[in-house]
Parts: sequence; structure tokens; C-alpha cells
Amino acid sequence: MSDSVTKNKGVRPRVVIAGGGFSGLWAAKTLANQPVDVVLVDRNNYHTFLPLLYQVAAAELEPEDIAYPIRSILRKYTNVRFVLADIKKIDLDKRILLSTDYAISYDYLILATGSATQFFGTPGAAEYSFQLKSLEQGIILRNHILRCFEYASRKIDDAKRQQLLTFTIVGGGPTGVEFAGALAELIHGPLKKDYPSIDFDYVKVILIEAANSVLLSFPKMLRDYALDRLYRMKVNVMLETLVDKVTPLTVHLKDKDILPTQTVVWTAGICADPIAETWGLSATRNGLLMVLPTLEVEGRQEIYVIGDLSSMEDNRRQLPMTAPVAVQQGVQAAKNILGKINGKPASPFVYKDRGAMVTIGRNTAVAQIGKKSFTGFFAWVLWLIVHLINLIGFRNRLMVLINWSMDYLLFERAIRLILPLRKPPKPRSKT
Amino acid sequence: MSDSVTKNKGVRPRVVIAGGGFSGLWAAKTLANQPVDVVLVDRNNYHTFLPLLYQVAAAELEPEDIAYPIRSILRKYTNVRFVLADIKKIDLDKRILLSTDYAISYDYLILATGSATQFFGTPGAAEYSFQLKSLEQGIILRNHILRCFEYASRKIDDAKRQQLLTFTIVGGGPTGVEFAGALAELIHGPLKKDYPSIDFDYVKVILIEAANSVLLSFPKMLRDYALDRLYRMKVNVMLETLVDKVTPLTVHLKDKDILPTQTVVWTAGICADPIAETWGLSATRNGLLMVLPTLEVEGRQEIYVIGDLSSMEDNRRQLPMTAPVAVQQGVQAAKNILGKINGKPASPFVYKDRGAMVTIGRNTAVAQIGKKSFTGFFAWVLWLIVHLINLIGFRNRLMVLINWSMDYLLFERAIRLILPLRKPPKPRSKT
Repeated sequence: MSDSVTKNKGVRPRVVIAGGGFSGLWAAKTLANQPVDVVLVDRNNYHTFLPLLYQVAAAELEPEDIAYPIRSILRKYTNVRFVLADIKKIDLDKRILLSTDYAISYDYLILATGSATQFFGTPGAAEYSFQLKSLEQGIILRNHILRCFEYASRKIDDAKRQQLLTFTIVGGGPTGVEFAGALAELIHGPLKKDYPSIDFDYVKVILIEAANSVLLSFPKMLRDYALDRLYRMKVNVMLETLVDKVTPLTVHLKDKDILPTQTVVWTAGICADPIAETWGLSATRNGLLMVLPTLEVEGRQEIYVIGDLSSMEDNRRQLPMTAPVAVQQGVQAAKNILGKINGKPASPFVYKDRGAMVTIGRNTAVAQIGKKSFTGFFAWVLWLIVHLINLIGFRNRLMVLINWSMDYLLFERAIRLILPLRKPPKPRSKT
Repeated sequence: MSDSVTKNKGVRPRVVIAGGGFSGLWAAKTLANQPVDVVLVDRNNYHTFLPLLYQVAAAELEPEDIAYPIRSILRKYTNVRFVLADIKKIDLDKRILLSTDYAISYDYLILATGSATQFFGTPGAAEYSFQLKSLEQGIILRNHILRCFEYASRKIDDAKRQQLLTFTIVGGGPTGVEFAGALAELIHGPLKKDYPSIDFDYVKVILIEAANSVLLSFPKMLRDYALDRLYRMKVNVMLETLVDKVTPLTVHLKDKDILPTQTVVWTAGICADPIAETWGLSATRNGLLMVLPTLEVEGRQEIYVIGDLSSMEDNRRQLPMTAPVAVQQGVQAAKNILGKINGKPASPFVYKDRGAMVTIGRNTAVAQIGKKSFTGFFAWVLWLIVHLINLIGFRNRLMVLINWSMDYLLFERAIRLILPLRKPPKPRSKT
């Protein structure tokens, strides 16, 4: 293997971090300027601020607004390097991470490759659903939604129009609710102005949830508020409804109707990226890798698993798969490694829960901070501020602020381009 | 054909405009609120500000900054409709425009589908060169350049490194010069900071031009200034050099060397989109459609050809393929149609030349206005102002202004994402 990062013997221990999401990035930041060599590996050259991904899909933000080049973040840390690579295998005994054309040896390994969508074996769901787990998927979904309106603006029959203008979101968790709200605002605001030839009575945004409420992890008062607001925003919420099957043009509901729809967005489940199962580490039924309370893998205590990929072994309540958990675990894993190098015992991870927030639309959000619940304008402003502050980079903050301000003031969305997302076409020019 | 826009007999004449670039859009604007029905057809749902496309390729602007949704532009004109379609054929006798799934009848047709890259039969050029004619191509080129640096940052042999770090631009016209300058600034500024492991003495930006100077259409003083500045920016300008062949890893020069390079950007020639040849209208050797001085097609005087696609039949000096020419032709064609409806004779097109400008880099540009030549900071500020003013949409102007200001003040480029530009991957999640 010619392309490889080999270890220099006798020098500082090398920590390899697989994944540049919240957990991996914060682990790298914590290890910065410490007596270790750090290599951060990611399949993309940018970090994605996933909490705002749904706004890219709803044509509210530009993809570049929520992504930041990892090299720029790490530039100031001389002991941290970045490698663009897609991790394939781990040689646990030789302590080497392998990608298709790359091998990186490690003394400590932090696995932070995140999660994937779980379809629970629903036929057709994986093939025909859109997902919201990566920047690419966000752009694909945005393009698809706008294309549906373009096709619906033509002279077509009613059945086809119904398929094109029914948007189905499966899963009433935070992502499903936030996306349903943002989509409803996009459609009944800017798109209504853009497509005068479309009868908007045809348009349906449907949110399907298996339980008897949306936002199950929130208190009842906030759940009810969210439901009420979604109804007012013309989102058709179908509770206690299970999806049996997805086809390119329909969603089949259990014991119920068949909905004609060309757009199914699946936000209902989360599992590990299937590749993690091949690494030979013990995993849960969802493929999440099991760790000790110290975030170490039992029996392989040079390996840490953090963020969405990590599952605590001690049967405690599964931590939410959120950015705050990931950030805190990243910091803790890094601190435990630094401690171990200095001969100190590893400390168990304790999640400091600072609350949770979900925005539904204009002036409309729910927030749970400690035992206090907030709704409406105050919760919405809080949500805006927290997300703006946590964005990486001054330029991204400024761009998001401008986009949000203009959307708010003008009831408008600027980013409605159907951008190409395909291979370069065969040159059509003279040769 | 079920999907079709059929003409309502006895009502206002329908003008169909093929292409939403500068010429087509300005034709539409001129026909707005006039006693005609207008249908604007484009294969994209956005208008692209092509004069700044090279800055997208050089990671200076976001794709969304130079694109604007056509429906938003046309929204305020009740007599103008937009159709997203790729034009395939024209039935000249029945007066119908045909796309794969669409048919639009017309009374007047304005053809404004623009130009494509001309490779002059150079073997391999069409297959292995990058182009700068569409937003998609700009993003593809940006991704490729950044990927070259990622791969070059690994431990590889010198020959491979040379291929990865040699960037070859063919054609010393305005696009070639502007892109060479922007690329040199990207490389020797932000990328140098991002890739500490790369020896930047390996990096070469080569500009190949067949003639004995760059920017042939400008006066000698400005050409010499541009050449001097390019040299100072470490652009290797090879004059009187012809390209014989392009392969994935090399460029073969006539009677000269073989350059190892994985990046060839072809800006050297322009021709019509080959599909225009199939429409049965008389064309030049480059496929441009010939028109009378009134911009009408001889013998088919309900058809107008404007913008890059248009070639005057009268052997006058070929007009430059620029936005000002396109805009003025769009306005003139629209006025001639309105005149014709009122029984007035069509007026010949006269180009009002307001000058030309090319930016080379920071504080560095050339401008030719009337008989006056400008260089340096003044020309550069003039270039910035003219381009900012001509961008469509307040938000785009603001975003470009912010991006430019921050790049200028911080010697930085924010947009260095290798964004996916491929089909959605097969879902990797559990099904």
C-alpha cells in the first residue's frame, strides 16, 4: 500500500478520528495543541451543520451556508491533520484504518461515523424514499420538490397532479416536524406566487407518525402546541398510522388508504451505517457500537465510539442522537485519551442536558429547558439564536442571518434553483 | 401529445422564447405587459450570470450567488409564462417547438439557446477537458481542483504529484485570463494555508494561447499589462502554442512538450449547441444561425435569433459573444416583433459598444471604454461595480458583495466544499 500514513516510532501517540461531524470535530479540537498527533478522516472535505439540513431541503438556506471546510477549521492546530477518505475496514489487531486507497495506523481510534436511516424493513422505503442525513440528500430533495411543481404546472391529468403535489413525510420526530413546517411555508408562500397556473388546493403536505403524537420526547403541552400549529399551517398530520410499503408513486398505509405521492421523505428511524457492522466490534440490533460508560470499547480500550454511532452498554436510557450529546462525547473521549496517556483512569461520560428545541415555522417553535417549557415567538427567537451561535464560521453565520432575515421580512425564499446533481453530461459540443 | 401548450385562436399572438440567458430574458422583459402572450422555455429553472461563472469554479462565489430563479424574475409580468423544458426540435411549417415531452405552438419564435465549447477537432479535448459554459460545469471544475489538492496532500510519487498540481487553461481570451488569475489567487492564498504538507513549488498554472498575446480584442497597452500581471501572479503563459491532443493525464503541444496535467480547462473556442444544426435553418461553419440585420431569419421572418447563437449574414465583423450584445439583441428582437404586430417595418440591430473589461486579480483589471484604456485599481473597482449592478436580485448582489469583501479583507475564500455532483448513491442503510 503506497498511499499510507505510517507511524513514526518513538514519537507522540497518534489518535485517528473517523468522522468529521460534531463528535469527531470536537474530539479533534480537544486534542489540538496537546502532546498527540491527530488525524481526522472524513469522506467529505466539509463539516455539515446537520440541525439546519432540513432548511436546505426546503430551499431556505444554501448548501454552502451549513457546511464548512474541515481543513479551515483545523488549520490553526499544527498537530491535527485531515485526510479525505471513505473508511472501509479496521484491522483491530494491527491497529490500522483502511480506506480504498489508504492505510492509517493508530494508537488510539475514535469512531464517529454517525448514523444512517433505518427503514424497519418497509418494502420500497429504502429505494423510493428521500432522506435527510447528508448535504447531498438535502440538495436532491430540494431539486425533486421544485421539479414536482414544474411538472405540475403543465397540462396533466388530475391523478398525475395529485401524485406530484402530495408530499409525504414519515416520522413525527424533530426532523419530520421541522421539515413539514418549512415545506408548508415554502409551498404556501413563495411557490404559490411562482406557479399561478397551479391550483394550490391540490397541494398536500402529509406527516405520518406511528405514535399518538408528534415530538414524543417533549412534554404534552409542547406536543399539543406543535400539533395545533402544524394543522394551522395546512400540514395533514396522520397519527397512529403505519407505513406498509412505498412505491415510486404511492405510500401504502397499514389497514388504511393508499396515498398517491411522488415524494416520500423518511425521517422515522436511525441506525448505524451498515459498514460499522463489518468492523468486528459488538453492536446493538440497530448496528450501533456498544461502549463502556467511559466511551471505550470493552476489550479494545484504545478504541472509543462517540456520537450517533455510540450506544451505552449499561441499559440506561439511550441518549438522544443530537449535536449536544455528540459534542460532549467528543470532548470526553479526547479527555479520556489524554488522561490515559498520563496514566490517569478514564472518567465515565455524563450528559449535561441543556434542553431541546424544535422550530415549526414563522414565530413558532417549542423549547424545553430544564423543567421549563416555552412556545411561540420567544421559543422561536431562542431557537434562531442558539443555531446561529453554533454555526461554524463568521461568514456562515452572516449568510444564514441574511437569508433568514430576508425570508422573514419579504415572505420569500431566494434559493429555488434546481441545481444539477449528476455526472457531467457527455459534451454536446463540436469535437 | 398530451403535455402541450396549445394556442388559443383569435387571441393575442404568442411569442415563444427559447433560452433564459441574457438575450432571452431581456426579450421577455421587453415583451412584458405588451399585447402578446409570451412563453419562455429553458432547460434550467434559473438564469445564470455567466460573466461570474469562473469565480464559482475558483471557489470564490457560491453557485446560488450567480443564479436566479427565472419564475421569480417573470412573476410580476402577467403575460409571460415559464416552461422548464429542453428543446429538441422545431416544426418550422406548423410553427411548433418540441421538447421530449412537450409541444408549444408559436406565432413568433425567438431562438436564444446560446453557445457551446468548440474544440476544433482536437483529439481528446471534448472528452477530457473541463468547460466553463454552465453552472454545472463550474461546480464540477471547482470540485475537481479541490480534489487534486486532497490527493496531492498524500504520500505519492513525484510524477503523480506533478500531474495533480499542474492546471492547464487553454485559451487566452477574457474567460481564460480571468480564470487563470482567480485560480492562481486561490492556490497561492487559501489553499497554501490549507495544505501545509504540499510543496507549492510543484504547483503550476499554465495558460496556453495560440496567438502572440492574451486578450487579443484589447489594445496593446492593456494586453501587455495583463501579460505582465499574469506572470507576476505565477501564471505560466505560453504564447504561440497550439494544443495537439488532450489525454486524462497530459496535454500534447504541437512541436513541443507533453505537459503532465490532470486538469485542462478549455476556453479557446465557441460554437453553437449542435442541436441547433438540426433545426433546418441556415448556419455558419460553427453552427451559428444566420440572421438578417433585423435579427430575423431570412425566409422565416417569424423567427428571430439572438445572443451567442446569432450570426449576422452581412459579413460585418462578428459581434463579441458578450452579455451586452445579448441584452441589446433581446430588446431589439422584442421591439421588432411588437412593431411587426402593429404593421411597422423591423429595424436593423445596431450594437452600442459601451466597452469591455477583464479582471485579472486583486486590484488588477483592464478596461476599455470608448477610446480610453484603464488598468489597475481603478479598472478593477469599475469591474466590480459594473458586475454587482448587473447581477439580478438584491440578495444576490448582497451575497456577492459580502463574499468579495471578505475575500478581499481576509485574503480568504469561504467556499471550498467538494460538493457532490452525482446521482443519489444507493441507500447504504438498513432496509
